[in-house]
Amino acid sequence: MRAMVYHGPGNKSWEEVPKPQIIEPGDAIVRVDAVTICGTDLHILKGDVPAVTDGRILGHEAVGTVEDIGPGVKTIKPGDQVLVSCITSCGTCRFCREGRYGQCLGGGGWILGHKIDGTQAEYVRVPFADTSVHAVPEGVATQDVLMLADILPTGYEVGVLNGGVGPGDVVAIVGAGPIGLAAIMGARLYSPSQIIAIDLADSRLEAAKQFGATVTVNNARQDPMAVVQELTGGLGADTTVEAVGVPETFELAVALARPGGRIANIGVHGRPATLHLEDQWIRDITMTTGLVDTFSTPTLLRLVAGRQLDAGRFATHHFGLDDFPKAYEVFGNAADTGALKVVVTR
Amino acid sequence: MRAMVYHGPGNKSWEEVPKPQIIEPGDAIVRVDAVTICGTDLHILKGDVPAVTDGRILGHEAVGTVEDIGPGVKTIKPGDQVLVSCITSCGTCRFCREGRYGQCLGGGGWILGHKIDGTQAEYVRVPFADTSVHAVPEGVATQDVLMLADILPTGYEVGVLNGGVGPGDVVAIVGAGPIGLAAIMGARLYSPSQIIAIDLADSRLEAAKQFGATVTVNNARQDPMAVVQELTGGLGADTTVEAVGVPETFELAVALARPGGRIANIGVHGRPATLHLEDQWIRDITMTTGLVDTFSTPTLLRLVAGRQLDAGRFATHHFGLDDFPKAYEVFGNAADTGALKVVVTR
Repeated sequence: MRAMVYHGPGNKSWEEVPKPQIIEPGDAIVRVDAVTICGTDLHILKGDVPAVTDGRILGHEAVGTVEDIGPGVKTIKPGDQVLVSCITSCGTCRFCREGRYGQCLGGGGWILGHKIDGTQAEYVRVPFADTSVHAVPEGVATQDVLMLADILPTGYEVGVLNGGVGPGDVVAIVGAGPIGLAAIMGARLYSPSQIIAIDLADSRLEAAKQFGATVTVNNARQDPMAVVQELTGGLGADTTVEAVGVPETFELAVALARPGGRIANIGVHGRPATLHLEDQWIRDITMTTGLVDTFSTPTLLRLVAGRQLDAGRFATHHFGLDDFPKAYEVFGNAADTGALKVVVTR
Repeated sequence: MRAMVYHGPGNKSWEEVPKPQIIEPGDAIVRVDAVTICGTDLHILKGDVPAVTDGRILGHEAVGTVEDIGPGVKTIKPGDQVLVSCITSCGTCRFCREGRYGQCLGGGGWILGHKIDGTQAEYVRVPFADTSVHAVPEGVATQDVLMLADILPTGYEVGVLNGGVGPGDVVAIVGAGPIGLAAIMGARLYSPSQIIAIDLADSRLEAAKQFGATVTVNNARQDPMAVVQELTGGLGADTTVEAVGVPETFELAVALARPGGRIANIGVHGRPATLHLEDQWIRDITMTTGLVDTFSTPTLLRLVAGRQLDAGRFATHHFGLDDFPKAYEVFGNAADTGALKVVVTR
């Protein structure tokens, strides 16, 4: 079969590799019908995730059709269409039993395209299939379901739920890339009064408006603090969401929160940040970090099926499998191409 | 009357000053029956709190007897014995209506011995008296009630409640000074399985054991990470409490928490800390900061009255009013004197 294989920092190729086989009784082999690329894949290609080694098939998001199952699999059968989530769950460890699947201690968590071969291929082996894939609901477009593999639950769980967004809140989203947009989409479910999107690129801020931001701030030429203070009587935002992953944006997210406010970090960080405890010790703030658990995926699937979430809005560019290198090019150059999520279909 | 007056960094004196008068209709004048000294007063004397200016009477903790009330005061009358709390509350601003009195926007919050004259005096003016003092319950010793002016609600609200301590949890307390001990005392109310106290001084760790720590770690010669990992199967503590106020102890508190763990900062910080987001972005941690609100004071008073909290255990040294300078000396030299809280009585 063909797959997108990582060959060390800066190197990848779309090449012929062996088709995966059942190894454990709980495995499923899934034929990939649609797959996408994540910002995290770009981090891997920069060498930021050293756990990913030469020869690894990339990708942790797919919708596919079950081709084969191990003898221990009970809830899916060949021919079923399933969502392959970025998080694999052993289902039995302490953290899985608490619904904290991202922290799985039993060999799951984020493993696809990281510790084992991933979804950017014609076929993928999914361990712990009973607790790691989701049946695709009737009547929902494949590309819409695909957005639930990672980006939507990440924005929702790690941004909106950790940030405790509630009705009437003023929410500031620092970074209006795909994850920031997913946080905006998720935040709207809780009826905040204002969603302030902050980014350096006007094109992203335009997208943020379309996703539901009520105010946009280009912090290359506007002071986000002044805007947030003016909108909140000088107090600051109820919730701020960090959706970039560099120290400066984390520090901005902390500074923008009101006394008693909540700061939800989604960004993947490679460097430490400075926490200004000399200012913040007295301000009753709550800061959270997190990897998505995907416990919300069934809920989000219902919202997509019921057209309360327009997941397909993320899918800006489409490719066939053999155009995978081109899909990377377009996604990696999002500033020029305006790509949010690319959809690569069989 | 006599009062302990701040005269700039390093300088204070017990001297004759004018007796306070009613200024606003909501004021009460309280005769101070018992008063104590806080670690924060020592910070002020080092010059760490520049809002405190020359001539300010120090102190934000007292039990006293109402001497006079303004025409707007409805719930107390001359002769009543009251707890004067470190937090004054206007009772009507947004944050007071949410029970977040420490962040009062209406002129309250931490003002006594900070922005207005404090309690280390024969008399003190307490603004917003109806919403800022608490009636002293029958049959509870004055020195026990005094511990509810600041230390016990601070350890309980900012450490135990913010840290979400629950039954069976492993709780690590970084710093076993009076505030760390208050957090230990408060944590026991929630039946954790282990309370690990970490400090550099054996004398403090001995006190921590008496207050209910199940394990003590002197981090001058033991590695707290190794101890916590061993007790938690390599995961880390469910809750960690920072009760010192320097970057190193905050960073230790973060490092000791398990995936999904909670870090509650109580310490008063003068410098920024480094937040290792490159490690923590993926670990689902929750970090909180806070100034005490004292919303728990009525609850804690019931627990003290019912002998479920042995508040008097903090009162290690007693002085008369005219020995106030000596009380400062003993409290400021706690490493040698073993002082936890000093009680100065009329």
